[in-house]
Amino acid sequence: MDLSLFFAGTAGSVPTARRGLPAILLRRGADRILFDCGEGTQRQLLRSAGLADLTDVFITHFHADHWLGLPGMLKTFDLRARDKPLTIHGPPGLRKLMNDMRYVWGGCGYEITLSELPPDAMVERDEYVIEPFLVNHRGTAYGYVITEDDRPGRFDAQLAEQLGVTPGPDFGRLQRGETIGGVRPEQVIGETRLGRKLVISGDTGPCEELIEIAHGADVLVHEATFTQEEADRARQTQHSTAAQAAKAAVEAEVRLLALVHLSTRYGGREIREEARAVFPATVVPRDFDAIDVPLPERGAPELVRWDGGGRPLPREAAAEVAAVEPGS
Amino acid sequence: MDLSLFFAGTAGSVPTARRGLPAILLRRGADRILFDCGEGTQRQLLRSAGLADLTDVFITHFHADHWLGLPGMLKTFDLRARDKPLTIHGPPGLRKLMNDMRYVWGGCGYEITLSELPPDAMVERDEYVIEPFLVNHRGTAYGYVITEDDRPGRFDAQLAEQLGVTPGPDFGRLQRGETIGGVRPEQVIGETRLGRKLVISGDTGPCEELIEIAHGADVLVHEATFTQEEADRARQTQHSTAAQAAKAAVEAEVRLLALVHLSTRYGGREIREEARAVFPATVVPRDFDAIDVPLPERGAPELVRWDGGGRPLPREAAAEVAAVEPGS
Repeated sequence: MDLSLFFAGTAGSVPTARRGLPAILLRRGADRILFDCGEGTQRQLLRSAGLADLTDVFITHFHADHWLGLPGMLKTFDLRARDKPLTIHGPPGLRKLMNDMRYVWGGCGYEITLSELPPDAMVERDEYVIEPFLVNHRGTAYGYVITEDDRPGRFDAQLAEQLGVTPGPDFGRLQRGETIGGVRPEQVIGETRLGRKLVISGDTGPCEELIEIAHGADVLVHEATFTQEEADRARQTQHSTAAQAAKAAVEAEVRLLALVHLSTRYGGREIREEARAVFPATVVPRDFDAIDVPLPERGAPELVRWDGGGRPLPREAAAEVAAVEPGS
Repeated sequence: MDLSLFFAGTAGSVPTARRGLPAILLRRGADRILFDCGEGTQRQLLRSAGLADLTDVFITHFHADHWLGLPGMLKTFDLRARDKPLTIHGPPGLRKLMNDMRYVWGGCGYEITLSELPPDAMVERDEYVIEPFLVNHRGTAYGYVITEDDRPGRFDAQLAEQLGVTPGPDFGRLQRGETIGGVRPEQVIGETRLGRKLVISGDTGPCEELIEIAHGADVLVHEATFTQEEADRARQTQHSTAAQAAKAAVEAEVRLLALVHLSTRYGGREIREEARAVFPATVVPRDFDAIDVPLPERGAPELVRWDGGGRPLPREAAAEVAAVEPGS
């Protein structure tokens, strides 16, 4: 099952020419789930991964840079004659916010469900769950963890046959837990394999609960609004520095750290370098980059640079790859 | 005095990969005045003409595609420590809308003035005025006309000298209206020259008042949401077709017609071709294109393609110039 994160907006509170406001698209099989929806997200998606297939939006918190793209997107869906329902999830307060904004999209031709999530909520999807957790930011602010169901261990067909089980229906029975001709399932089935785990921090200062929840994650997407030079400002505003995010990645023993929500003062390189000194497996995605997350036995999570959707990279972007963030 | 219109967003209600939501920047000398501010305008400006120098925003009407970029832009100004005041002008209803949205930008460190304009308002600027006029669209919807003050006629110094006036202070006196040694000002000063006039239609169906007001304009920026194939839909939604906009340009005898607010179903060529069959001096700007408006004696208004701010055109954009809208 394909699993990836698509970065539709990687700026912090203020956009730049290169970075749009926060939005991350989770793609799993045919599922398309958006985390945060800063102003301009609908167009960022139109320009890249596409907009139409979205079924759910999860908002981390209610600072405007994280949701202000939602009303216009809802309106656009209606003007495009959407009929598929859409669910918007977020911390308590979501209903009030959306009701205050409702006049923007008015009466629309598809169903919008508002889902206020308590901190211990679990949103069940087919083969995975999405859960909020409280982070350290002003107001009620969530991170989200996406956890796939565990997969059964690998069935060793060759060994089963050597032990006298006949290929065919008995193989199925063994895998479903029956003992066949004295051969017990655990003899021929490996250990249960953990599902993949992705964690999105939202906006947060250093956060113990995040470190616990992110333990062993395949990808931790963590905000890194500042570098250590601005550590005071990070503390005052309850944001993280790159080094703090990297320290969380070390403690949580994640496989890959992706840093987002960069202040306009950073192009990306300073953030990446500061983090890599602490946690080498760090990337700083640019808008429209993605992280592919293969099953663990098939490889490591990997940053995939946006290639213009198969079209040649615009010259400007190509130059940026070479000049601005070499080696990231 | 340099005068130009910069097209920051040329789509209609829904953005596309190529066209952002409505926003047009008037540039006159150092003045920077924005007409409409669709979602994403702040970033469109950041990516192109710049955002910081804006002093005034004029909203044509309160459909979300025309103002939804304003709250985020106001917030961004504050986060960027703006201290210069900003005035937002619009039809009656502006105060309520902005008060409803105020929590987005909260208490900010610069002064925001809200100016509800009656239909006969005249906003005076140094050497020009901006006036709203009612157009045909749902709710109270304005177009705006920007009119420069008339300039005195040209002083014929050679002729004045031939008539016996001594160059020096007497030349100044003549130009200020005094008769010098029997020589009357009108003998040596040409006819008063009209200031330049720009008209922005906002959203509107065919509109008689617009045609009157736009008479002789240097540039008429008119919406052309549809082609004639969708004339019924245009009528139902109180929008214009390209042919209708072109007919207005013919009747108003404008110098150049620029069509904007295109429905997503059009790339631009169909709109341009339909209009040019009626009014040949029609252009369909793309995002970041501009129209330079020289003084009439110095040349005709002209579409200037965006060149990436002096950087090479992205390959994609260059290909579009060649492939999508040849000759526009």
